Amino acid sequence: MSDQPLTEGERPKADLLLFGGLVVTMNPHWEVIEDGAVAVHKGEILDLGPSRELLARYEAGETMDASGAIVMPGLVNAHTHAATSLFRGFADDKPLKQWLEGYIWPAEKTFVNQERVRWGTLLAIAEMIRGGTTIFLDMYFFEDVVAESARKSSMRVVLGEALFEMAGPSHRPFPDALAFNRHLLETYRLDPLISVSVQPHSTYTVSPDNLLRAKDLADEFGAVFGLHASETAEEVAGVRQKTGHSPAQLLAHLGLLDDRVLLFHGVHLNQTEIAVLAETRAGVVHCPEANLKLGSGVAPLPALLEAGVRVAMGTDGPASNNDLNLWGEMQMASKIHRGVSGNPNAVTAREVLAMATRVGADLIGMGDQLGSLEIGKRADMILIGLDKPHLVPMYDVYSHLAYAVGRSDVDTVVIGGRPVMRDRQMLTVNEDEVIAHVREIGGEIKHWLDAR
Amino acid sequence: MSDQPLTEGERPKADLLLFGGLVVTMNPHWEVIEDGAVAVHKGEILDLGPSRELLARYEAGETMDASGAIVMPGLVNAHTHAATSLFRGFADDKPLKQWLEGYIWPAEKTFVNQERVRWGTLLAIAEMIRGGTTIFLDMYFFEDVVAESARKSSMRVVLGEALFEMAGPSHRPFPDALAFNRHLLETYRLDPLISVSVQPHSTYTVSPDNLLRAKDLADEFGAVFGLHASETAEEVAGVRQKTGHSPAQLLAHLGLLDDRVLLFHGVHLNQTEIAVLAETRAGVVHCPEANLKLGSGVAPLPALLEAGVRVAMGTDGPASNNDLNLWGEMQMASKIHRGVSGNPNAVTAREVLAMATRVGADLIGMGDQLGSLEIGKRADMILIGLDKPHLVPMYDVYSHLAYAVGRSDVDTVVIGGRPVMRDRQMLTVNEDEVIAHVREIGGEIKHWLDAR
Repeated sequence: MSDQPLTEGERPKADLLLFGGLVVTMNPHWEVIEDGAVAVHKGEILDLGPSRELLARYEAGETMDASGAIVMPGLVNAHTHAATSLFRGFADDKPLKQWLEGYIWPAEKTFVNQERVRWGTLLAIAEMIRGGTTIFLDMYFFEDVVAESARKSSMRVVLGEALFEMAGPSHRPFPDALAFNRHLLETYRLDPLISVSVQPHSTYTVSPDNLLRAKDLADEFGAVFGLHASETAEEVAGVRQKTGHSPAQLLAHLGLLDDRVLLFHGVHLNQTEIAVLAETRAGVVHCPEANLKLGSGVAPLPALLEAGVRVAMGTDGPASNNDLNLWGEMQMASKIHRGVSGNPNAVTAREVLAMATRVGADLIGMGDQLGSLEIGKRADMILIGLDKPHLVPMYDVYSHLAYAVGRSDVDTVVIGGRPVMRDRQMLTVNEDEVIAHVREIGGEIKHWLDAR
Repeated sequence: MSDQPLTEGERPKADLLLFGGLVVTMNPHWEVIEDGAVAVHKGEILDLGPSRELLARYEAGETMDASGAIVMPGLVNAHTHAATSLFRGFADDKPLKQWLEGYIWPAEKTFVNQERVRWGTLLAIAEMIRGGTTIFLDMYFFEDVVAESARKSSMRVVLGEALFEMAGPSHRPFPDALAFNRHLLETYRLDPLISVSVQPHSTYTVSPDNLLRAKDLADEFGAVFGLHASETAEEVAGVRQKTGHSPAQLLAHLGLLDDRVLLFHGVHLNQTEIAVLAETRAGVVHCPEANLKLGSGVAPLPALLEAGVRVAMGTDGPASNNDLNLWGEMQMASKIHRGVSGNPNAVTAREVLAMATRVGADLIGMGDQLGSLEIGKRADMILIGLDKPHLVPMYDVYSHLAYAVGRSDVDTVVIGGRPVMRDRQMLTVNEDEVIAHVREIGGEIKHWLDAR
């Protein structure tokens, strides 16, 4: 991986050498390296191993002392609408349909434009980095602005312009939105930080014909295809009435399910549908906090995992959740299914951690590049300092990560070898500026809301 | 409230004047004061109101700028076993009975002594203060050590020696433990920080006769009486088989229920039992995270609230949870019941906040002194800084507190007028020392665990 052949006695170069940490690789063998090091070069993981060995082996441009910290891959947020941070908690405690139709969609029509998407996305990126998320799959409007915001922040993103048949805030009818998505696919084809997916909103807002068109576009580029499906019982009943199929059945019927397809939520999937997902290798993004908060229900996560369906973790938008905290989602996912099933092993600590890292990366189409610390993968890593009362003592690192660690325990975040937060100091987002802009936008939205 | 009569032109004194905050009083009228101030004198709240007025009215010994922060009462943790922080995550993913009998109880017999309880309790106190908890109701062994640890940390506590019939780690048979509890009741009768309750472990570990003896002791001192009840289906079935009554029915049958009685957990309460609790004014402490994680079930919180039963919030011990984070419990309580019931209003933001403050204080017998910011109450307050990406924008402060704020957002904590954490700096606990001791103890426990 070095640029030039080495002469005798010369050590290979590493741009960054992180040492002394408890390296939780999240590789398929669950390898953990005590007093471990990670050597990074040109944004990729060059080597992993005991600190002593790597410190002797490489000539490091920069070193980072990870003593007393867990080092693990950055978290993967496989479903969100980042810029809805602007609407965080603006109309709580409503059922999904009423919340969407009576509040969110009218507010989006009134307020969402390029400028506001920029500030909302930057705020969300700051929040995600602070919580150790290093990539997010985004469905929203003006995704070119999302791309710019991510690039500016050195944050990784998978874009997806929201494809609706009704006119959205970007005022693009479906064919235009699809064409715009094609433009994004072309533009970011080789980008190191930015990838592009195809994301029609759902089977209840997009016709079968348009779903097929969208999937064709995704297949042309080998891109991930994702949509909301089976989020509420009402949605399932409505789609069934209109098409004779549930959302998942409809997708199967249209021949749309394969291993590059993601169903967001999947709360009301039955055993037959779960079997179809397992067979087609389509995945599900589990967003328990939003599902619970909106009263949508409890997804059949244990059944999905048992059937071998790949399940990633998502926060959904901060308007419904009300944050972008994958640690909270992991706690929820690990705990709720036990309480509901009465089985204290319904979902294990390792399973939720894999969902938020390795499996998530796989489902968003980047399993070969992200989701675990392995040689040749991109260097997206987070450091979690353990010298905190709530993280002492430690008997099992996976149990600790699933049940005790929280967003604010992430001290340092590295994306593609570049530190974006160091010791809680943000390095790529001007938080004060972003917060000031969002507060101003929030004030306008509050004014509108109070007048309704 | 001043010590000496004031001469003309002299302003009354306040030891501490906190100003410029968004004061969320949590009083029964849900009053919120923008740009508000709290004047504190001799550990009590002397006055509340607009900053300008209070700054002009009082001569302040010390001022505290709360600009950009929420000021609210400290949180009440109404059920925990603080020193089990030593066993945080040491045997996860087991059903309660197996977890208790196969792991926790043998480990406690082997390891729990005064010295270890001291370090475990201090660790738990540090964690609780960091998360904005200002009082905890504790059931454990060597509660005199818990008292000393709380006093040393300026933390508020309600003690309760765990009353078992089998010999516990403190090797005190039931009568001796009861006598020891009497000693605690006498010792701390007039203590400003430390109160004492009476806490038999449960109806499955303590006979009816001994429950009656314990309640007599509590009544003699007007103390709160608390015990585990209806935590698991297995417990309910076992007690029913032995006594012909469920735990709650048995307590009613023995005439033990009144407004100074607390049932910890109450997961498997039926409608008849809920009606009895409402009628007798006995309370329930809701501990959703532990109940879910151990697969015990989902407590009927919406039914309890609808019946008018007073419900407080507890974390349970950090061995089962795996932390002491009331924000996590509030998030869980506000979300899970919606998902399970399908009603997005099953439990509201205000309800969970009241449970963790005003109602909790009431249930632990201190409703006249704690749980809201009101004149004459003790000055237990927390400051939550809002200049953080995940707390912007803000449309409704209660929604924000219930769904977006987390433990690490608590910047400053005041107990009885005394700052115990200021800008995240702990002032009364030497964290490094405590963490070092607990790590050493944890190492011994891990060694024992690995050898099993």
